[in-house]
Amino acid sequence: MQLIGIKTPIINSGDNVVEVLSKAFAEQSITLENGDVVVLAESAVATAEGRIVNLSDISPTQKALKLAHRYSLDPREMELVLQECDEVFGGVPGAALTITKGNLSPNAGIDGSNAPAGHVVLLPEDADKSASVIRKGLRELFGCDIGVIVGDSRTQPLRLGCVGVALGTSGIIPVEDARGESDLFGNILHITHKAVADNIMSACQLVMGEGGESVPCVIVRNAPVMLVDEDVPMPLFSREECMYYSNIRRNGTSKS
Amino acid sequence: MQLIGIKTPIINSGDNVVEVLSKAFAEQSITLENGDVVVLAESAVATAEGRIVNLSDISPTQKALKLAHRYSLDPREMELVLQECDEVFGGVPGAALTITKGNLSPNAGIDGSNAPAGHVVLLPEDADKSASVIRKGLRELFGCDIGVIVGDSRTQPLRLGCVGVALGTSGIIPVEDARGESDLFGNILHITHKAVADNIMSACQLVMGEGGESVPCVIVRNAPVMLVDEDVPMPLFSREECMYYSNIRRNGTSKS
Repeated sequence: MQLIGIKTPIINSGDNVVEVLSKAFAEQSITLENGDVVVLAESAVATAEGRIVNLSDISPTQKALKLAHRYSLDPREMELVLQECDEVFGGVPGAALTITKGNLSPNAGIDGSNAPAGHVVLLPEDADKSASVIRKGLRELFGCDIGVIVGDSRTQPLRLGCVGVALGTSGIIPVEDARGESDLFGNILHITHKAVADNIMSACQLVMGEGGESVPCVIVRNAPVMLVDEDVPMPLFSREECMYYSNIRRNGTSKS
Repeated sequence: MQLIGIKTPIINSGDNVVEVLSKAFAEQSITLENGDVVVLAESAVATAEGRIVNLSDISPTQKALKLAHRYSLDPREMELVLQECDEVFGGVPGAALTITKGNLSPNAGIDGSNAPAGHVVLLPEDADKSASVIRKGLRELFGCDIGVIVGDSRTQPLRLGCVGVALGTSGIIPVEDARGESDLFGNILHITHKAVADNIMSACQLVMGEGGESVPCVIVRNAPVMLVDEDVPMPLFSREECMYYSNIRRNGTSKS
């Protein structure tokens, strides 16, 4: 398994990600091969999709004003958080803790870094669809079977530092079911799934960095993933299934 | 960056991990190079360190009996969970949710898979120390500067599937502080740390697998990590610093 970071120019609203990538591959003398997984930072994808908001266009509601005060946030950003998230379940100074598109996401994944002054970038509206469109475009151009992952970086509870999290995938099995396999002593594994897409995204964080490195894409070669010629959406893990969720205090404000 | 999985025979209690690895490297015609990071599954390290317990040797206390009933666990395993963890903060059928050695760990990281029948494997007593001992042994043998990570797989809240988590490190900076760096637009990043060791561990999960693959070690070559000739322990993220922790209901049973 090998990771190759791809540098690109700054991606702007309206850019065609497939064109940007194909130029960048050519400049680094790289061509895609069968089985490659192309991994993209969601901020680059979302920016290209026009998911940039000028904060001066936003008028916060009373609810946003109240929560912005509680969590020390810009009321206009808090308004966007409320519009984007499934629910706010708590917060700390500087971050409203939300569930957004089914995932734990501080501030609904809205990010002021890597955005022009006074602007923020929302998450892609449908990251699985973004991955699907990019996969089809790259496949047409390079004529090979690849997978695509669109993801982000997140902190984990009680851990210092950001790891990767896949938001959308196309052409790979994002979570593999290992139930029924045997362990070293022949015992059957009962509850184990492999978060393949999340693990690939975390590996790519090492190459992407968090700041101004301009490496929004990583090609993962010879990764032990299962490629499929279809769109398998990231599975959502329901709150009822999650052993942690039942232990998260519901002291927040649900969206509706 | 390149990942090379290392197959070994089943590791038994009392085995010398450095010897097992050096034999396995030789069989795969691999030698360590300056800058390599050697990543190990904690179950292999803990087993070699003799952290295997025969459940028939354990007599559960009243408290363990009560919690075992509540969470549908073997009372002897629940007793070990109580002995190993910092606190139990909740649970679901089949798993007591604990903080153990500072980390979120279902059942205190105690695992019946990859263990002989009737036995369980505890986490290494001090995974940073385990990493340090292995690094010194490998460095003496191969005469090069390497890093070592000892880690495990864990589920994340609201995510399906296991990702990697580093428990102990030696010879690398496990979490890099990116504060003060600039983003694409020259804005200063304020609160970003990179969970380098966790990300490497997640990458290695792809190669290790969860079950009977007998790949307890992965060599990570050309990883963008900062090597240091010292033991930098995994930083603990205090409950006060963690934005999620304050939102986890304290409905459980603290250990003391």
